[in-house]
Amino acid sequence: MTTSPTSGATPPLGIAMIGHAFMGAAHSQAWRVAPHFFDLPLRPVMSVLAGRDSDRAQAAADRLGWTEAVTDWKSVLDRDDVHVVDICTPGDTHAEIAIAALAAGKHVLCEKPMANTVGEAVAMAEAAERAAQRGVRAMVGFTYRRVPALGLARDLVAQGRLGRIHHVRAQYLQDWIVDPAAPLSWRLDKDKAGSGALGDIGAHIVDATQFILGDTITEVMGTLVTFVPERPLATSHSGLSGTASDETGPVTVDDAALFLARFASGALGSFEATRFANGRKNALRIEVNGAKGSLAFDFEDMNVLQFFDGTEDSSTAGFRRIVVTEPEHPYVAAWWPAGHGLGYEHAFTHQVVDLVRAIAEGTDPAPTFAEGLRVQRVLAAVEASAESGTWHQV
Amino acid sequence: MTTSPTSGATPPLGIAMIGHAFMGAAHSQAWRVAPHFFDLPLRPVMSVLAGRDSDRAQAAADRLGWTEAVTDWKSVLDRDDVHVVDICTPGDTHAEIAIAALAAGKHVLCEKPMANTVGEAVAMAEAAERAAQRGVRAMVGFTYRRVPALGLARDLVAQGRLGRIHHVRAQYLQDWIVDPAAPLSWRLDKDKAGSGALGDIGAHIVDATQFILGDTITEVMGTLVTFVPERPLATSHSGLSGTASDETGPVTVDDAALFLARFASGALGSFEATRFANGRKNALRIEVNGAKGSLAFDFEDMNVLQFFDGTEDSSTAGFRRIVVTEPEHPYVAAWWPAGHGLGYEHAFTHQVVDLVRAIAEGTDPAPTFAEGLRVQRVLAAVEASAESGTWHQV
Amino acid sequence: MTTSPTSGATPPLGIAMIGHAFMGAAHSQAWRVAPHFFDLPLRPVMSVLAGRDSDRAQAAADRLGWTEAVTDWKSVLDRDDVHVVDICTPGDTHAEIAIAALAAGKHVLCEKPMANTVGEAVAMAEAAERAAQRGVRAMVGFTYRRVPALGLARDLVAQGRLGRIHHVRAQYLQDWIVDPAAPLSWRLDKDKAGSGALGDIGAHIVDATQFILGDTITEVMGTLVTFVPERPLATSHSGLSGTASDETGPVTVDDAALFLARFASGALGSFEATRFANGRKNALRIEVNGAKGSLAFDFEDMNVLQFFDGTEDSSTAGFRRIVVTEPEHPYVAAWWPAGHGLGYEHAFTHQVVDLVRAIAEGTDPAPTFAEGLRVQRVLAAVEASAESGTWHQV
Amino acid sequence: MTTSPTSGATPPLGIAMIGHAFMGAAHSQAWRVAPHFFDLPLRPVMSVLAGRDSDRAQAAADRLGWTEAVTDWKSVLDRDDVHVVDICTPGDTHAEIAIAALAAGKHVLCEKPMANTVGEAVAMAEAAERAAQRGVRAMVGFTYRRVPALGLARDLVAQGRLGRIHHVRAQYLQDWIVDPAAPLSWRLDKDKAGSGALGDIGAHIVDATQFILGDTITEVMGTLVTFVPERPLATSHSGLSGTASDETGPVTVDDAALFLARFASGALGSFEATRFANGRKNALRIEVNGAKGSLAFDFEDMNVLQFFDGTEDSSTAGFRRIVVTEPEHPYVAAWWPAGHGLGYEHAFTHQVVDLVRAIAEGTDPAPTFAEGLRVQRVLAAVEASAESGTWHQV
Repeated sequence: MTTSPTSGATPPLGIAMIGHAFMGAAHSQAWRVAPHFFDLPLRPVMSVLAGRDSDRAQAAADRLGWTEAVTDWKSVLDRDDVHVVDICTPGDTHAEIAIAALAAGKHVLCEKPMANTVGEAVAMAEAAERAAQRGVRAMVGFTYRRVPALGLARDLVAQGRLGRIHHVRAQYLQDWIVDPAAPLSWRLDKDKAGSGALGDIGAHIVDATQFILGDTITEVMGTLVTFVPERPLATSHSGLSGTASDETGPVTVDDAALFLARFASGALGSFEATRFANGRKNALRIEVNGAKGSLAFDFEDMNVLQFFDGTEDSSTAGFRRIVVTEPEHPYVAAWWPAGHGLGYEHAFTHQVVDLVRAIAEGTDPAPTFAEGLRVQRVLAAVEASAESGTWHQV
Repeated sequence: MTTSPTSGATPPLGIAMIGHAFMGAAHSQAWRVAPHFFDLPLRPVMSVLAGRDSDRAQAAADRLGWTEAVTDWKSVLDRDDVHVVDICTPGDTHAEIAIAALAAGKHVLCEKPMANTVGEAVAMAEAAERAAQRGVRAMVGFTYRRVPALGLARDLVAQGRLGRIHHVRAQYLQDWIVDPAAPLSWRLDKDKAGSGALGDIGAHIVDATQFILGDTITEVMGTLVTFVPERPLATSHSGLSGTASDETGPVTVDDAALFLARFASGALGSFEATRFANGRKNALRIEVNGAKGSLAFDFEDMNVLQFFDGTEDSSTAGFRRIVVTEPEHPYVAAWWPAGHGLGYEHAFTHQVVDLVRAIAEGTDPAPTFAEGLRVQRVLAAVEASAESGTWHQV
Repeated sequence: MTTSPTSGATPPLGIAMIGHAFMGAAHSQAWRVAPHFFDLPLRPVMSVLAGRDSDRAQAAADRLGWTEAVTDWKSVLDRDDVHVVDICTPGDTHAEIAIAALAAGKHVLCEKPMANTVGEAVAMAEAAERAAQRGVRAMVGFTYRRVPALGLARDLVAQGRLGRIHHVRAQYLQDWIVDPAAPLSWRLDKDKAGSGALGDIGAHIVDATQFILGDTITEVMGTLVTFVPERPLATSHSGLSGTASDETGPVTVDDAALFLARFASGALGSFEATRFANGRKNALRIEVNGAKGSLAFDFEDMNVLQFFDGTEDSSTAGFRRIVVTEPEHPYVAAWWPAGHGLGYEHAFTHQVVDLVRAIAEGTDPAPTFAEGLRVQRVLAAVEASAESGTWHQV
Repeated sequence: MTTSPTSGATPPLGIAMIGHAFMGAAHSQAWRVAPHFFDLPLRPVMSVLAGRDSDRAQAAADRLGWTEAVTDWKSVLDRDDVHVVDICTPGDTHAEIAIAALAAGKHVLCEKPMANTVGEAVAMAEAAERAAQRGVRAMVGFTYRRVPALGLARDLVAQGRLGRIHHVRAQYLQDWIVDPAAPLSWRLDKDKAGSGALGDIGAHIVDATQFILGDTITEVMGTLVTFVPERPLATSHSGLSGTASDETGPVTVDDAALFLARFASGALGSFEATRFANGRKNALRIEVNGAKGSLAFDFEDMNVLQFFDGTEDSSTAGFRRIVVTEPEHPYVAAWWPAGHGLGYEHAFTHQVVDLVRAIAEGTDPAPTFAEGLRVQRVLAAVEASAESGTWHQV
């Protein structure tokens, strides 16, 4: 537990959050909780929430704990009490909001995927680079980096405990639209979401594997598939699902994305992101095999990292089930005693902790928009490869 | 996610928390978070924190988010803005504080074990009964009941999915003092803690199994052991551990408690609570075998319940790994989508949700002090049995 | 794989097997297979099978690969081509056969439990001791000792990798009579079987834990229960089950046995053997916690041993899933490459390998009848304790 | 267990085995054991073993239990006491031996991969088709089909329990040459082995997935990699490894093969076969996701099949850990009681059981050479795809 409080004397850091659906709830919890467990150099203040519909925005602000609600996100850019713009809207709006916020001198935390197109992402990365010269920070919300087990995974690779990496095996398996009667939502609409499983969850395993390896994907070969091309229209578009109506509409994004990848180091990757893995709810799985050892992770058991140390005597070598709740593990000392596991939302808390510290220290928080752009290029290369049926450079 | 906010119009419920160590941090998080995810009929206000040392209490209040700090816990009983007294101190103080608070008309949430002796627990249960007649509520903090997987376990038993229960196998395995050099703390001092593994973690599996089965333990036979009877004195007594000094002192509580138990229904139980299970950090494990099916749980994988349905065709029967994150599961709808697991602290949030609702509805929250007394009697029977070497009635 | 054959030049070792049910099939497979994988100093010859019913014995001999069938087991003691008597009959006949065989100068392999009473076991141990002086060997069939993972477990304890042992947690869970309509068989008849779960499967965990720890149980406190005291009579008594008739009869043995145990070293044990653990088919589970490390095993994953090395840095410590199929592991080099697991029957093969080698080397094979007697005394102490409700010395 | 023996009155079926390394040992065990557990219409006789080196062949025959050893495999084709030729040699010799044996009227069991080239496989399939018209049978040794858990998997798919199949995820992970100092063996020599991981273990997952789905792969896109292109020469070429010398030689096969696949039904597959997955010894893993349910298997836990029934109520749905040792499960009734698991070698026993029965019944045993050819075409398409960097039709 922290040894000194984030007291009232700490300078405030005003936050404006744009959007208030699933991600808005997760980000709100992070801003609310972080200062009570981590010793922060700036004190986050949940100043204002922006949402298109006035009533729904106000209700969200009340429920999620924001002081005020507005309907025009642009209005928050003029406020002196807002230092950070936290973007939780669908991907098609990220570029406009982020670029404007950075131009207005606001630090930006942008949900992933950073953008719907490489073009947007390029513009965002350029805006972030310009802003950085003025001390304004930008960060992409690849939260899984902040799961302690994946932080430990990166540390072990960086320490050379795995040696040269041969294989990466990454899957992000969900099943929430395996039922053909599940209705259309904005996440199945290419205009809003940019892509389907590829950008929504595939982006996470691209970032997470590059993060763990400290390496970059240079070439991909993949395929996209839409198993159910037509679905009932939803009567309500909010949330992850909705109620189905009698009319149907086209699914314009991929249900699943599979691709092979080559990393700069020569490591070989196999990636799969799908919303059709029946029985798998949020199975983000990563296995890494190196010359000296291996790692395996499954988000369905998120407080555990499996580690095989190949330098052990073969009679006692085996995958170790490390319960990643020791004080030595990334972020863990701030929380509970060993064995008292964390949940999904804690990675969001760690994310704002890292952002607040970077802002205070005047350093770039990771992942930067440049890294977000790099992920976007991988996704675009997968799409191009799926189109052409050949390997594509990233 | 909740459909209506716990808005400013909701009547306030002022909370005073006594104590601010490990449990204080967990309870504070619960009070802070609950209203943002659950639709509560009363709005918890974190009014005042009481701690013996003025500076440390103030620092804790700042860090944990309490409006005010006081050093005299009795002072909170006179305040009109305090409706609930939340007791997070060591067990030797529970009876005095709880009885006084109830007498003062304050609702009480009391950490487990409810008391250090059966005598204290009897007095508390009587005080609670008197208070209930005046609409004042009392609840014991057996939080594991509020882990969704254990709530589901109880539901399945109550629905008859397991049939007649034959076996209960419960273990609570930790290893935090397996090192003989780990220093003495108040948890190893019988005067403060009442007992060791038995009361600290054994109490949890007694309550959890009785809760799941809807049954009571009637007879026990057990043994207590102290593997390391002498330890270095700690230079600081706060927290779970501390720094060791050169002097040593006696461990006056049990390091491990093992007992067999008979339930009223005829089910047979095997219980083990230990702080010496090397490599097990917080492994609260429960397995229940019935005539029609079985259940298994391990807190190290807390979002999962294993369920064997013996009425399945034997060619496809098998323990099902239920990921207990569906909206249908207890408490889960308020949180995240399926597969996005909860952590240790969420059970504390569920606890205050249940308490606030019971207060508003004018009903007794479970577990009552009468139930806490019943657990205390089981612990006392184990101690008596360990002394006499024979079976003891509860 | 073996480097030199067990060729025809190797002196023969004639085997007579008494009984031919489940255990007969397992023993036959062992005698048949052992010489083709292990380099044996004597060549087992499957000479004669004895069974009470002539037709059934002949059919069994044909099916199981024995040269000849006889109905009078005593006749095999006079034969010069029989060197080993392998006893696979129910427990009530063990003493008579074993003592007669040893007196006739035949080496004896006796299935467990060694006897139905301590008295019989004492007589057998004395007979074995007398026989040993004449170079005649006797061995009890506690086959689980010969599962490679348990051999590795013993090695790790013996090497001090676990340090001082604090806890042993042993369960043998089956469910084959959880259905109250399952018919009576000889295994539910005290006269034939001696006891129920206690002797049939409880004996295995008593032997296995004493073997792994190199320690002995000195005191026990336990209880026995018969959940279903009356069952349909079987129309046929052979095999594990049979067809139920309309008449019923009493179950005269325990359905489950639970006991606590103290080892000579001070380690504390918790034991449970049951035929009522719905969904557990043959779950022999052992966990050992020591000052330096821990071990865990489950026969349902028999090629794996979990090992926690507490001397590891806490940031990477974790239970290692050792796949016990490396050539360095006990018995494994004779079989397949790493990762190509063994099955239930292989432990029987290892058993005859150890017996044949001991006979050739003129040493006592483990476990001796003295060790079998020691297990019998533990079982008897559990029964006495269940009767008196107090601790009993072994 | 079997109810009637394979007695002496059963007509004999003479077997000649060509080759006697790892696979020779596994096949010998199968021929030896099968008649004692399964009721066979023909009685296998282990007549003759052929090996190039006279001394080594004789030693192998002695050790493995063959009546006779010869050095010229062609000589066995002229013998009247040989009815089956069992080919356990490296892949470059399969076509010649199999075609000659079939021409000589001998039934053939040929180890996988069936051949080193599609050309050879075509010739073999044609020879098998001609032979079949004369009642002579040919079978490829894809043994994993005969693991009971995979048989059950196929049954569940065939019964429609999974619905339309969306995803197949297949991995065969080993690590036996992850050490760059591991010496060259014939398995790393393209002339002898045809390919590396692709043909040796990739072939197994191609066959196993097609078998489970009852479907065929129509198109693939893949890559092959050789992580360690140069290795020490072995001083001895026998076995899986050997002793390294100072000289080195080129590795001419792939260390790992990754490919995406489309099945005729529209299912999407992801395949990976590697000898560089540190810590994975023989991890043949298959996961199948369908519209109604899912399956998962890992050979490191070979007696278990995971099954998710998506038609369950979501509050109790979960992957069921089916212990595939019930009498209802494929092949299991012949062996041990529930929970007493089988090992690697048992699949070989099941293989000869199916072959012997097909021979006696005059039906084609599966997998036929036509199916083996189909697998070979998939492997060739992967190689072509790896060359061209595009998708290839099978």
